[in-house]
Amino acid sequence: MKKREIVILGAGYGGMMTATKLQKSLGVNKSSITLVNKHTYHYQTTWLHENAAGTLHHDQTRISIKDVLDLNKINFVKDTVVSIKPDEKKVKLENGEITYDILVIGLGFEAATFGIPGLEEHAFTINSINSARLIREHIEYNFAKYHNEKVKNQARLNIVVGGGGFTGVEFIGELANRIPELCEEYDINKSKVRIINIEGSETILAGFDPDLVEYAMNSLESRGVEFINGAMLKECKSNAVVYEKDGKQYEIPTFTTVWAAGVRANSIVENSGFETNRGKVEVRKDMRAPDYDNVFVIGDCALIMNPESGRPYPPTAQIAIQQSEVVAHNVKALAQNSDDLEEFEPNIMGTVASLGHNDAIGVVGNSKLFGFKATIMKKIIDNRYLVKLGGIGLLMKKGKFNIFY
Amino acid sequence: MKKREIVILGAGYGGMMTATKLQKSLGVNKSSITLVNKHTYHYQTTWLHENAAGTLHHDQTRISIKDVLDLNKINFVKDTVVSIKPDEKKVKLENGEITYDILVIGLGFEAATFGIPGLEEHAFTINSINSARLIREHIEYNFAKYHNEKVKNQARLNIVVGGGGFTGVEFIGELANRIPELCEEYDINKSKVRIINIEGSETILAGFDPDLVEYAMNSLESRGVEFINGAMLKECKSNAVVYEKDGKQYEIPTFTTVWAAGVRANSIVENSGFETNRGKVEVRKDMRAPDYDNVFVIGDCALIMNPESGRPYPPTAQIAIQQSEVVAHNVKALAQNSDDLEEFEPNIMGTVASLGHNDAIGVVGNSKLFGFKATIMKKIIDNRYLVKLGGIGLLMKKGKFNIFY
Repeated sequence: MKKREIVILGAGYGGMMTATKLQKSLGVNKSSITLVNKHTYHYQTTWLHENAAGTLHHDQTRISIKDVLDLNKINFVKDTVVSIKPDEKKVKLENGEITYDILVIGLGFEAATFGIPGLEEHAFTINSINSARLIREHIEYNFAKYHNEKVKNQARLNIVVGGGGFTGVEFIGELANRIPELCEEYDINKSKVRIINIEGSETILAGFDPDLVEYAMNSLESRGVEFINGAMLKECKSNAVVYEKDGKQYEIPTFTTVWAAGVRANSIVENSGFETNRGKVEVRKDMRAPDYDNVFVIGDCALIMNPESGRPYPPTAQIAIQQSEVVAHNVKALAQNSDDLEEFEPNIMGTVASLGHNDAIGVVGNSKLFGFKATIMKKIIDNRYLVKLGGIGLLMKKGKFNIFY
Repeated sequence: MKKREIVILGAGYGGMMTATKLQKSLGVNKSSITLVNKHTYHYQTTWLHENAAGTLHHDQTRISIKDVLDLNKINFVKDTVVSIKPDEKKVKLENGEITYDILVIGLGFEAATFGIPGLEEHAFTINSINSARLIREHIEYNFAKYHNEKVKNQARLNIVVGGGGFTGVEFIGELANRIPELCEEYDINKSKVRIINIEGSETILAGFDPDLVEYAMNSLESRGVEFINGAMLKECKSNAVVYEKDGKQYEIPTFTTVWAAGVRANSIVENSGFETNRGKVEVRKDMRAPDYDNVFVIGDCALIMNPESGRPYPPTAQIAIQQSEVVAHNVKALAQNSDDLEEFEPNIMGTVASLGHNDAIGVVGNSKLFGFKATIMKKIIDNRYLVKLGGIGLLMKKGKFNIFY
C-alpha cells in the first residue's frame, strides 16, 4: 500500500503542535509527514511584542524546528507557499510543488490595513521575527540619530501605536519599560519621549472587565503612556500620523507608527479558492474545510463561531494549540482510513495580558488577576506551552523564569 | 589680588589632562580654573572605532568629567564654544560668555571632506560618542531591514570605508570581528556582506613598515575585507559611492560609507582670527599661540613641525597627553607671574594599530610587533592613560582587561 502523504503548511502554534503530536502517534511506515515553513524556525507570536520593544532577544522567542521535531520522522521543507490547489491536491511553493493526500493549513495571519492610506508603506507591524527586530532597530536608530542633527526632530522620539487591543497594549507595556533604558543609552531626556496609543473604541482592551482596563491604563499612564481613545487613524505618512477624533483631525509627527489594530488570515487561503468568511475558512466541527474532506484548517486561518456570543472565537495561541489536539487525532484517523473523527470544543481557560515584564492583568476562570499574580500566570502559560511542544529540555532553554524582577 | 581666571576649552586628551594636572598643582586661592565642554563627559577618541563597529559599548569609552575632576577645585561649564575673541579675552558660548586671563584651547578635530560631493551629507564619520553609536545603529538597522524587503538590497550589506589610515584600518579590524555576530543576529549569510576599504595611496597605513602593512592586510583579508588602493573617492550618494582608479570610475551600491580619510582642526580656531597653518595654530615651543602671550593651544588644534621629517607631528593622543605636561606647567607659571616656561619636546614611544580586539601591529622603539604582543601593548597603552587621568580607580572601571580572548 502506498504511504499516505500528510502535508502541514506553516510551523506556527497550530502546525507545529500538530506535527509534534503526529510524530508521536503515527508510524513512519504507513504515512509520510511533511512540514513546509518559510523559515527553519518556529516562533512564539505572542512574545514578538517583547522582541519589538527590545526587552527580549528574538532568539529566546524562536525555536529551531530541528530541535523539536525528529527529522527522521518528519520531512522538513524550507520554502514559501505560493498557492494551494485543493482540487489537484497540490501546493505550489516558491521553489517547487508538493502533492498531498491529507493537508493541514496553518498559515497564520497577516496585517489588515483596511485601506488606510500610507499604512502599508510607512507603518510597522508585529508579525514575524524579521518585523519585530526591525521595530527594535528602528526605534534605536532614531534615538541614535537624535543627537546627530542640528535641529532636533521630535518625530524621532514619538512612538505611535495604532490599536489598543491585546498586541498594542502588550507592546506598549514593554516599550514603557524599555524607554528609560534607551534614554540612558542615547543620552536623551526621558520627558522628551512620547508613547501614544490610538484606539478606535472608547476603551482599550475592549471586552476585558472595566476594573482590569482601568488598572492597565493606570499602570501604563504612570509610566508615561498617552491614550487617545475613540479616535480613528486616518493616514500614515513617512514622518507623521493623522487621526480623527470628535470630527476633528490631528497630526502627530513620528517616524515610528506600529500598526496593531487589525489582523486577517493569510490571504493565500482566500486566493486558493476556499470558501471564506472574512478571509478565513469556516471549518466543520472536525476542523476540516467545508468543501474538502482531506483538508484541515487550523489557527488563525480557521473560523469557528462561538454560539453563545454569536461572534467568532478570537485568533489566539490558546485556541490554535487546543485545535491541534483534534486535528492531529483526525489526521491520524483519516490516514488509517478510520471515520472516528473528533469534534473541536474550545475550552477558554483564561486570558492574561502583560503590561511589561513586571505587571499584567488577566482573567482566569471567574477570577480577575492584577499585578504580580497575573504576571506569574502569564509566565506559567508561556512556560506550559514550551513543555507541551518540546518537553522540559525546551522549557529550560527558552522558558521565562524572571518572575522576581 | 584678583584671582587669575584660567579657562580650558574642550575636555579631550589635551584639555582633560591639563585640567587634572592643574587641579593638583595650583591652589584654588590664587586662581580659578574653568573647564568648558559640550558634554558632561570626556571620551577616548582612540576607542571610538570600537563603539562604531559595535564591539565595545560607548559607556566604556566615555568618562564622566565629575568622576575625574574635583568640582570643588575646577568649575565645569557644560556649553558649546561659538567663538574666541582673543583681543577681548573672551569666549562666546552658546548660552553666554566667559572671560579669561589665561586660555587653553583644546577643541580637537573635525572631519575634512575636501569638497568631495555628497560626503558631508551622506557619509558617516567617527569623531564623537554620538557619531560612533549612530554608525553602530545604522549598520544594525540595515541588517535588520534586509529580510523585510521583497527585493533584497545589497547596498544594505556593503560597508565602504574611505581611508586606509589609522582610524580606517582600526575600524575595519573591529568590523571584521563584528560582522559574523551581526550575521547570526539577523540571519544573514556572511558571504553576502562586503567590507571595502578605499585608499588613495598605493598602500594602507602609509608610513608603517611594509612588513607590518602586509601582516595587517593578510589579517584583514583573511576575515573578508577587500582593499582598493590607489583609488580616489569621487562622490558619495545616499545609496552608493563612486571611486576612480587608473582613470576609470566605479560605483559601489552602499548605504554605509564611513569617511576616515581626513581630519582638520576645529574650525572655531581659524574663524576666531588666529594665524593658522592648515587650520591649526603653529604654536611656539612653550605651546602658546604666536600672537597671544596668554593663549595656549593643545592637541589637534596645535601644529608642531618635526624638524627631522619637515612635516608636522601627527595629531595623536600620545602627543596631546605629552603636551599637557608642558601646558599645565606653563599655565601655572603664568598664573604665578613667573617666566619659567618649559618647552615641548615630543617623545614618540611607539605606535600600535589594532586589527580587532585579538590582533594588532605596531612599532615600539626599534621593534616591530605583530599579533598577540602588539595587542597586549595596545591595551597597556590604553590602560596607562586611564591611570594617568584618574588613577587605579578609573583603570578598574574603564580599563581593557580582555587580553586573552
